[in-house]
Amino acid sequence: MARKRLGYQTVWLETPPVIRASAAVGGAWEGRGPAGKDFDLVYQDLILGQDSFEKAERMMLLDACHLALEKAGVAGPPPKVDYFLAGDLLNQIVTTSFSALSLSIPFLGLYGACATFCEALSVGSTLIDGGFADTVLCGAASHNATAERQYRYPTEYGGQRKPYAQTTVTAAGTIVLQSGGEGPRITHVTTGKVVDLGIKDPYNQGAAMAPAAVDTIAVHLSDTGRSADYYDLILTGDLAAFGREMAIKLALERQIVLGKQYRDCGAMIFSDDQNVGAGGSGAGCVAAMTAGYWLSEMARGKYRRMLVVATGALLSPTTFQQGENIPAVAHAVAIEV
Amino acid sequence: MARKRLGYQTVWLETPPVIRASAAVGGAWEGRGPAGKDFDLVYQDLILGQDSFEKAERMMLLDACHLALEKAGVAGPPPKVDYFLAGDLLNQIVTTSFSALSLSIPFLGLYGACATFCEALSVGSTLIDGGFADTVLCGAASHNATAERQYRYPTEYGGQRKPYAQTTVTAAGTIVLQSGGEGPRITHVTTGKVVDLGIKDPYNQGAAMAPAAVDTIAVHLSDTGRSADYYDLILTGDLAAFGREMAIKLALERQIVLGKQYRDCGAMIFSDDQNVGAGGSGAGCVAAMTAGYWLSEMARGKYRRMLVVATGALLSPTTFQQGENIPAVAHAVAIEV
Repeated sequence: MARKRLGYQTVWLETPPVIRASAAVGGAWEGRGPAGKDFDLVYQDLILGQDSFEKAERMMLLDACHLALEKAGVAGPPPKVDYFLAGDLLNQIVTTSFSALSLSIPFLGLYGACATFCEALSVGSTLIDGGFADTVLCGAASHNATAERQYRYPTEYGGQRKPYAQTTVTAAGTIVLQSGGEGPRITHVTTGKVVDLGIKDPYNQGAAMAPAAVDTIAVHLSDTGRSADYYDLILTGDLAAFGREMAIKLALERQIVLGKQYRDCGAMIFSDDQNVGAGGSGAGCVAAMTAGYWLSEMARGKYRRMLVVATGALLSPTTFQQGENIPAVAHAVAIEV
Repeated sequence: MARKRLGYQTVWLETPPVIRASAAVGGAWEGRGPAGKDFDLVYQDLILGQDSFEKAERMMLLDACHLALEKAGVAGPPPKVDYFLAGDLLNQIVTTSFSALSLSIPFLGLYGACATFCEALSVGSTLIDGGFADTVLCGAASHNATAERQYRYPTEYGGQRKPYAQTTVTAAGTIVLQSGGEGPRITHVTTGKVVDLGIKDPYNQGAAMAPAAVDTIAVHLSDTGRSADYYDLILTGDLAAFGREMAIKLALERQIVLGKQYRDCGAMIFSDDQNVGAGGSGAGCVAAMTAGYWLSEMARGKYRRMLVVATGALLSPTTFQQGENIPAVAHAVAIEV
């Protein structure tokens, strides 16, 4: 087994990379939610003065990138960053690719659906701890109007939503990782395997992703020899109301108690009175919630050991139209003070 | 600067990972080309007995994965592999995600368009050299019928092709990297920045990608202090006939002579008499050509130092329909005996 490996899916970071800075931006609707006060920037509309929603999404990711680079003191130009590691939900991750063009940082494009943010932190941590990078910019974004029309219906169509459907979040989150300095550190990374429990309904992504989340949490705890209460916060990406309940039950079947320390970003990004169905989803959800709200909570001293488990539903409109199941993956990073 | 970094975009591998095994599979048309004799498997049709072209593409990638795993002696089950690193051209890289479900190996999904194969080798090399993995499976795939209908027109439509258009290759290539053992080694990795020289025509991807290829080659040579003739083979992914000419000219402007040692996979995968326009393209092109033909040539003693520069056009149908340019990226890996 490789030197820094613990079990089949987890690695430990010998010199844990530091979260040097983070930034979160979001739409007006997300800004009204409980975490909005910790966003660096809240936009007043969905178009951001651009001529397409796609360009608005890109501007949002770029804003989050520039904010984090400035906070970390590596904005340049050129940015003093070794890699830009990011992804989004649009076909061919064009939000990220076009942002990479503007940033002019060596770029590795990632796709893990809504698990992309933790995938970026995973690759970034190993690049730094492996001696290949000093500073890495990680990010993910999603936009309600671009994702809904690509995966479901254009929002202008006004299609009626199923009560268990989630709302794609308009938000982006970024983190600057560095090899040294002050800040919380990424100590362990657990990379998910793709799992499939037979869900076919693309509106029911929480149910598709819950088994992946629980699988990765169980493997992480087993690989590290930790119990769930080692962490004072276990955070899933965007299972939302129903997926969260399912995760708690599936975890219990594996003798893991997801109790008070367990929270889900999708279930928390909107208030109950915002009428968004089961909650939020989208690659920007866990990104903005972690980079904005949870790291701020950590800085306020409320948490010391956080396991972030971003979950992704690996469908495309083509696969579900062809009647295939929705496989899912979850990647976890342990962030400790 | 990080310990294993040379310049802004290149890293060196302290204990260069070994290419333990590779596999290439391709369609009948690709099998008829000059490299076909080195493919492990040539299919007789495009559908492979499946009920959709998408499932055929997935079967092709899985065949290439299983072949390489068997050759490397790590087939399992379960496969003795720490990571599956791969991508493809379909929306949400579903070919790869569904293959990852079947393989049940910890999975990081990548997207770099036709540069994905070198992106996978890059991430895989750093994971191994960083102490995080012993064995990594890298791959990429593309399928003519799935890609053409997603990006251009369904092949059944019979649309007339522009003479400079490239043909998406039906092929997949995989490489098993290991921390030790016998075989050629990956010694350096150069990660590309996204560049854009203003090309807007989605049929002219060779022209969009040539500047990225030359930029990455120039940076690689500058970062490593090597001249172009250090390598007995410099290989671009799929610039094809016109992009290849453009790359030679752009390189000359930077005082780099791409001479006899310079070859392009897209310009070589089909014979001149196969009437495929400018040549081949697609994420499977450089993957199958490298994993099949070029590594076989290396094993036959014809080459000792090879720089593989996979090139990707980072467009989506949405971006070109919205009138945007086609940015591109190129990632390079140095393979040495």
